[in-house]
Amino acid sequence: MSTATPAYESLTSTWTRLHHLQHLQSIAGWDHAANMPPKGNEARAAAMAEMAGLLHRMRTEPALTAQLARAEQEPLDDLQRANLREMQRQWRQSNVLPESLVQRQSIATSRCEHAWRQQRPANDWTGYVGNLQEVLALAREEAALLSAQTGLSPYDALMDRFEPGMTSARLDGIFGEVRQWLPGLIDRVIERQAKETLITPVGPFPQNRQRALCEQVIGLLGFDFQAGRLDVSTHPFCGGVPEDVRITTRFQDDDFLTSLMGTVHETGHGRYEQNLPRELLGQPVAQARSMALHESQSLSFEMQLGGHPGFVARLAPLVTQAFGDQPAYTPENLHRLITRVKRGFIRVDADEVTYPAHVILRYEIERPLIEGEIELDDVPALWDTKMMELLGVDTRGNFKDGPMQDVHWSAALFGYFPCYSLGAMYAAQWFAAMRRAMPDLDTRIAAGDLAPVFGWLHDHIWTAASRWTTDELALRASGEPLNPAHFKTHLEQRYLG
Amino acid sequence: MSTATPAYESLTSTWTRLHHLQHLQSIAGWDHAANMPPKGNEARAAAMAEMAGLLHRMRTEPALTAQLARAEQEPLDDLQRANLREMQRQWRQSNVLPESLVQRQSIATSRCEHAWRQQRPANDWTGYVGNLQEVLALAREEAALLSAQTGLSPYDALMDRFEPGMTSARLDGIFGEVRQWLPGLIDRVIERQAKETLITPVGPFPQNRQRALCEQVIGLLGFDFQAGRLDVSTHPFCGGVPEDVRITTRFQDDDFLTSLMGTVHETGHGRYEQNLPRELLGQPVAQARSMALHESQSLSFEMQLGGHPGFVARLAPLVTQAFGDQPAYTPENLHRLITRVKRGFIRVDADEVTYPAHVILRYEIERPLIEGEIELDDVPALWDTKMMELLGVDTRGNFKDGPMQDVHWSAALFGYFPCYSLGAMYAAQWFAAMRRAMPDLDTRIAAGDLAPVFGWLHDHIWTAASRWTTDELALRASGEPLNPAHFKTHLEQRYLG
Repeated sequence: MSTATPAYESLTSTWTRLHHLQHLQSIAGWDHAANMPPKGNEARAAAMAEMAGLLHRMRTEPALTAQLARAEQEPLDDLQRANLREMQRQWRQSNVLPESLVQRQSIATSRCEHAWRQQRPANDWTGYVGNLQEVLALAREEAALLSAQTGLSPYDALMDRFEPGMTSARLDGIFGEVRQWLPGLIDRVIERQAKETLITPVGPFPQNRQRALCEQVIGLLGFDFQAGRLDVSTHPFCGGVPEDVRITTRFQDDDFLTSLMGTVHETGHGRYEQNLPRELLGQPVAQARSMALHESQSLSFEMQLGGHPGFVARLAPLVTQAFGDQPAYTPENLHRLITRVKRGFIRVDADEVTYPAHVILRYEIERPLIEGEIELDDVPALWDTKMMELLGVDTRGNFKDGPMQDVHWSAALFGYFPCYSLGAMYAAQWFAAMRRAMPDLDTRIAAGDLAPVFGWLHDHIWTAASRWTTDELALRASGEPLNPAHFKTHLEQRYLG
Repeated sequence: MSTATPAYESLTSTWTRLHHLQHLQSIAGWDHAANMPPKGNEARAAAMAEMAGLLHRMRTEPALTAQLARAEQEPLDDLQRANLREMQRQWRQSNVLPESLVQRQSIATSRCEHAWRQQRPANDWTGYVGNLQEVLALAREEAALLSAQTGLSPYDALMDRFEPGMTSARLDGIFGEVRQWLPGLIDRVIERQAKETLITPVGPFPQNRQRALCEQVIGLLGFDFQAGRLDVSTHPFCGGVPEDVRITTRFQDDDFLTSLMGTVHETGHGRYEQNLPRELLGQPVAQARSMALHESQSLSFEMQLGGHPGFVARLAPLVTQAFGDQPAYTPENLHRLITRVKRGFIRVDADEVTYPAHVILRYEIERPLIEGEIELDDVPALWDTKMMELLGVDTRGNFKDGPMQDVHWSAALFGYFPCYSLGAMYAAQWFAAMRRAMPDLDTRIAAGDLAPVFGWLHDHIWTAASRWTTDELALRASGEPLNPAHFKTHLEQRYLG
């Protein structure tokens, strides 16, 4: 331990303690989704609120203010300085929020999410809004405080928690451009795919075999089962801690592809977490860079790899092995199934071509919702209009497959949705960079050799963690900051090439 | 909220906060045993140690000293006064231990228990002692501190954590008497049972059906699955929190009775927790009275009910339903299987007749181990001698079925073992009291009506929680403090009657 940097060392100790306590919070959060019986909810919500308050008090400990200032003057190396930058960022975000707000949010989101599990299947929008109203009110309160501190608009201030540096002005440009070419592209792809012969797999697909197949595939994708698990929850997610990653999925008897590709998606998140710099775990610089970067990993796995004809050819025999021989399981047909483009209700079931439409719709609703331009009662009509406009599907009265389908708003994750599409854009950009560096990449993937992909991601994304800003990381990894052109090119080549 | 009792109110707030944080600790502890992958262990141990330290700081907060003294002078009712008595008891136990000791214990026991999972199947006594040595050293340190504070001997001071009021002097009397009649009783029972025809069930018993049977039976026993779960772990236990009770078992393909009766045992613990006074949860007065009382509930379920011919007659058709018709599944034969007495290696597999021998052996080893009269290297030879003496079985070289079979020492639970046999004695005493109060009890159990049993336990044990001392609770419930004669009578009537 350096003696020339006492303030910095004291700060790293604080963050290590936070890391330890957040470990328990994360595991309990996973348990809440994967295991907890219904009557456990009130006690769990109270326990989580207590911990949220405690962590908040640690992050707002008055002594930190002086320590952060003193550490600035200490002789830090580049890595330590990057860590200090991220500490300051986290400190600013925590210190603008009063503890009472943090506790009320924890209780309101636990209650809302828990009730949502029953309300969604019952299509109970009114009941849902009854809880969501409080979550939204608290999110607006948080946004106002963050906005006052950062000078960002309220929505941008919330988004900045997930995607530092991203603004709605920049996003309006990116999404505005996508809005121009996307509907036409969807039309052309669907028209073209309508001419293909598509053989539907015949179920049922026993859940224990689906589970075994998922475990086999995520094993191929390098997930370390000695440091993580696969379980079942209503809304699939990647939770736990870097040292013990908990990914979840859900199985349906009549469809195996949704859980399989969903699991591949979560595996991308999981490998990012499992490969963050081990010796620095607990320090902000060793945390995942941003949510768009996180999604760029899940989508590198699910879309870039999962929809790659070479990878699908390796999947096909495993599917046959799991469920018996069927004409649907040829590599060609399986690839058609996986890359099939359909206008649908559900974001998490959407293909990579229609997916941005779901995100743009949510962005266009949650931004004015947070800015106070609209209220929750306006959401269903807006949802219906935009779904019709962007995807041509009718969602009227169908709340459970409409604005109630996601867990995000219940969990106060306003500002998160854009990260999914930004992640898809980054993923396309990473694979373009890989192909420039390794011209034989596609041949090697087709030969079942995924090491070049994992090696590149390991070196450029996973171990980089929060060493640089997102723009600088992208520049170092791929020679340019975010460039959505790669995403358009990827879609055109895969679907119209 | 009373304004005349500000110190007392402040104390109850502190205990409510402890309750919330202990919730996360308990769930993470359950997860550690039921879910956690091996590489998660170091991070989990660090997180648990952090939380142990934090809880310790809360329990040793200097302000508590004055609050406890001031609360004594406040106008409390009887229930509040009982709560204050239990607060003071917990406070004394916490305040004698320095935080560094608490943290070192958490790390040492996590490491020891985790390694034990691999070491036990490998029969690796030397490797195990390598970790256990540190656990023992810290336990002796703790015992010395508790002893200096209470005036009890070091071992009695440790036992007092689990069984307030019990001493080795009293225990020497109780166990000394059992030692006199037990070997002869075992001989007579085994001789008598040798004449019976016993039909062995034919396996395999698929684990999913075993699981379904267990769930059905613990449902009959009133366990609330809306407020708890059944899962799998190496060493079965009842964990979680009163609002969300987690019981575990382990399944073996060639034997269903071990997991079934083990689960019935844990259900007894679970119902006690699920029926503690809800409105007071978090307060010491609402916690289970003692470990012997807790075991009296698990053994009321497993032994008093589980070995009751009337209850077994209700089980028989469920067993047939689960595994198909077999001659072994007649009520008579099933009862013989369940009440079969055998001299064996494993405590948790032992019948209620030989069980006290296992406990007495452990008591006679762990007491001198804590008092510093012997060392870990002496344990195997002592174990071998006492097993031969008490049960006539040869354990030489078989560490995994000898001193490595239990999780207790790895977890520093020295002083816990006596509670099992004290619990068996209390359970016999409770059923004797029930029969005096309800002469038709056995007829009603045979008719499948368990409500009288649950009602009695609910009123006299579960909702009483820590309202009274153990002796006073026993007196109120059964008209006398602990009287081991009921246990002897129970064994003689069931096995020689």
